Amino acid sequence: MSTAGKVIKCKAAVAWEPNKPMVIEEIEVAPPQANEVRIKIVATGVCHTDLYHLFEGMHKDGFPAVLGHEGAGIVESVGPGVTEFQPGDKVIPLFISQCRECRFCKNPKTNQCENGWAADSHDVMALAESRFTCKGKKVLQFMGTSTFSEYTVMNQVAVAKIDPAAPLDKVCLLGCGVCTGYGAAVNTAKVEPGSTCAVFGLGAVGLAAVMGCKAAGAKRIIAVDINPDKFEKAKVFGATEFVNPKDHNKPINEVLAEMTNGGVDYSLECVGNVAVMRSALESCIKGWGVSVLVGWTDLHDFAARPIQLIAGRTWKGSLFGGFKSKDGVPEMVKAYLNKKVKLDEFITHKMTLDQVNDAIELMKHGKCIRTVLSVSPQ
Amino acid sequence: MSTAGKVIKCKAAVAWEPNKPMVIEEIEVAPPQANEVRIKIVATGVCHTDLYHLFEGMHKDGFPAVLGHEGAGIVESVGPGVTEFQPGDKVIPLFISQCRECRFCKNPKTNQCENGWAADSHDVMALAESRFTCKGKKVLQFMGTSTFSEYTVMNQVAVAKIDPAAPLDKVCLLGCGVCTGYGAAVNTAKVEPGSTCAVFGLGAVGLAAVMGCKAAGAKRIIAVDINPDKFEKAKVFGATEFVNPKDHNKPINEVLAEMTNGGVDYSLECVGNVAVMRSALESCIKGWGVSVLVGWTDLHDFAARPIQLIAGRTWKGSLFGGFKSKDGVPEMVKAYLNKKVKLDEFITHKMTLDQVNDAIELMKHGKCIRTVLSVSPQ
Repeated sequence: MSTAGKVIKCKAAVAWEPNKPMVIEEIEVAPPQANEVRIKIVATGVCHTDLYHLFEGMHKDGFPAVLGHEGAGIVESVGPGVTEFQPGDKVIPLFISQCRECRFCKNPKTNQCENGWAADSHDVMALAESRFTCKGKKVLQFMGTSTFSEYTVMNQVAVAKIDPAAPLDKVCLLGCGVCTGYGAAVNTAKVEPGSTCAVFGLGAVGLAAVMGCKAAGAKRIIAVDINPDKFEKAKVFGATEFVNPKDHNKPINEVLAEMTNGGVDYSLECVGNVAVMRSALESCIKGWGVSVLVGWTDLHDFAARPIQLIAGRTWKGSLFGGFKSKDGVPEMVKAYLNKKVKLDEFITHKMTLDQVNDAIELMKHGKCIRTVLSVSPQ
Repeated sequence: MSTAGKVIKCKAAVAWEPNKPMVIEEIEVAPPQANEVRIKIVATGVCHTDLYHLFEGMHKDGFPAVLGHEGAGIVESVGPGVTEFQPGDKVIPLFISQCRECRFCKNPKTNQCENGWAADSHDVMALAESRFTCKGKKVLQFMGTSTFSEYTVMNQVAVAKIDPAAPLDKVCLLGCGVCTGYGAAVNTAKVEPGSTCAVFGLGAVGLAAVMGCKAAGAKRIIAVDINPDKFEKAKVFGATEFVNPKDHNKPINEVLAEMTNGGVDYSLECVGNVAVMRSALESCIKGWGVSVLVGWTDLHDFAARPIQLIAGRTWKGSLFGGFKSKDGVPEMVKAYLNKKVKLDEFITHKMTLDQVNDAIELMKHGKCIRTVLSVSPQ
């Protein structure tokens, strides 16, 4: 029996308050309104940004919320005015929209659509836009997506239709981490063939950045992490050298400068730590080195001496790898299907939505690259 | 009688120690050695970097020194191996060299030749390279140039031959300030036609940046300074609007965001103040805004929140406006002779070398744009 037009009761992991485990609850998901799409989430990755919202970024106004923003699913129904999607389409929810009409979408220099979900703060969709309730209370949608739920509702400007052949339990990773790292190298840093790169932090985003550097033709890709266990994985994605800052008595930028006759051409910070951001900049060669912030934190300033830039370095940042989301995600899905991009190698754990707190714990202790949760049966 | 091959005794302003007025002394200038050129300095600008070395950057190992780095003169004699120059050539000493052979010179992305004068620090040429003595003591050459002297000696990689028609008491300004600001807009920010720019600080460098924005085709050029007296001058160079941060009760980046529907496309910091650097970045529009550090300070870190870059802004720096010096300076001289670039309008005061301390005082109190000192008779 069709659920279209009806409220769906389903399972979701609700984060009721900061710094507490999520609770699996039955929630109500309202039908899609004009220009909205209701999606059955089949699989979702668990990303560090979920952890961040729950434990570090924790602002009480960001709760209760359903977290999760790296999912893939199937359209269940569409609201009035939606012509691009129909029930049964495979889709990836996008935390960055692409309306194709705003001045940002029309400018090839950026992917930061201004018609997105973003509320003023706390990384949640505006309350009025949320289609979730639980126990009589409105529940917020984290990053406009909320993939830790069997169903979610999103505006069509923030949904990418993908190849029907795509395995959702793999391509879900293109909803955040893999595009973020890969695109930071390819689109934001614009790594050039033959260049030398350093990637700081070898979580999923960092490994994807390594993969992006390789795809762009980098000759040397130096993987930097304080956990040497990650090097084997980094090699799989294309790293050519590994440096553990703990093995050296001098600053990592000096180590890299010696290895590279003055510094790397490109560095990518995939940790979200302002001290590492500084090191990454200082590891670049003067004259033309480009350093890109990819990791996320908003608790502290990043900083450096002015001479670092005056000497010719450039400091940039990347959000969702600079991909215009509706254009980029389906292309990345194709690249995966054509074996140009790896995804399976990121997945170290598979669990179900019920185990979401275990997945968060694994991530907190650096025990996984990516855990994929199966959410609804396909 | 030719002075070639002989020690020249001449007048120079010697900075004996930090935080004290310079003293006009008789110094000895040795003949040029291999690949060196001895230059009679005809005129020199007085730049904030001279002031900075004397009063703020003041490290005792940087003294005694002859300051001045924005000069123009005439070749007096050349050392062995010099074929590019001959006595009588009009030249501009360059504090950034261009050897045309190092990997930096060969890379079109940068002007930071690695075969320059730079000692490890303190902005002075290595002691062994200096050709100056005074009262039996070796005297350092500031920024490799030392234009507060009737004669100086420089390696040919750091000398630009210019059009014989050039008036030296005007084109001396192309030795630093004007190229620095103009090039920061044209070469480093790469200001695009139709764009909106903000220039923070309306000294000579800032005014030159305004001129560069205009030359690049900017539609709006917002001049920002806490001294409203500078606006009339800024208009001469192309500023279309003026904002005095003191007239507003909110941060200048918010004022600019309101004026420009979200922020400027390009901002140029021409003050050398880390708080202004932050404001300049934050004044840029998300998505594609580019902010360039042009002003010099090395006393503090510059800083911002990571989201500023993650949201799509780029932070760059510019040294000598990104001009490859031996190529760029003669072109700028031609542009001046062809009335494409203004120089006369920067000069608010004319003095002689004897009055160098007065010129420094004027600058310290913001009473001038540029003072040009006549040094030797032509």
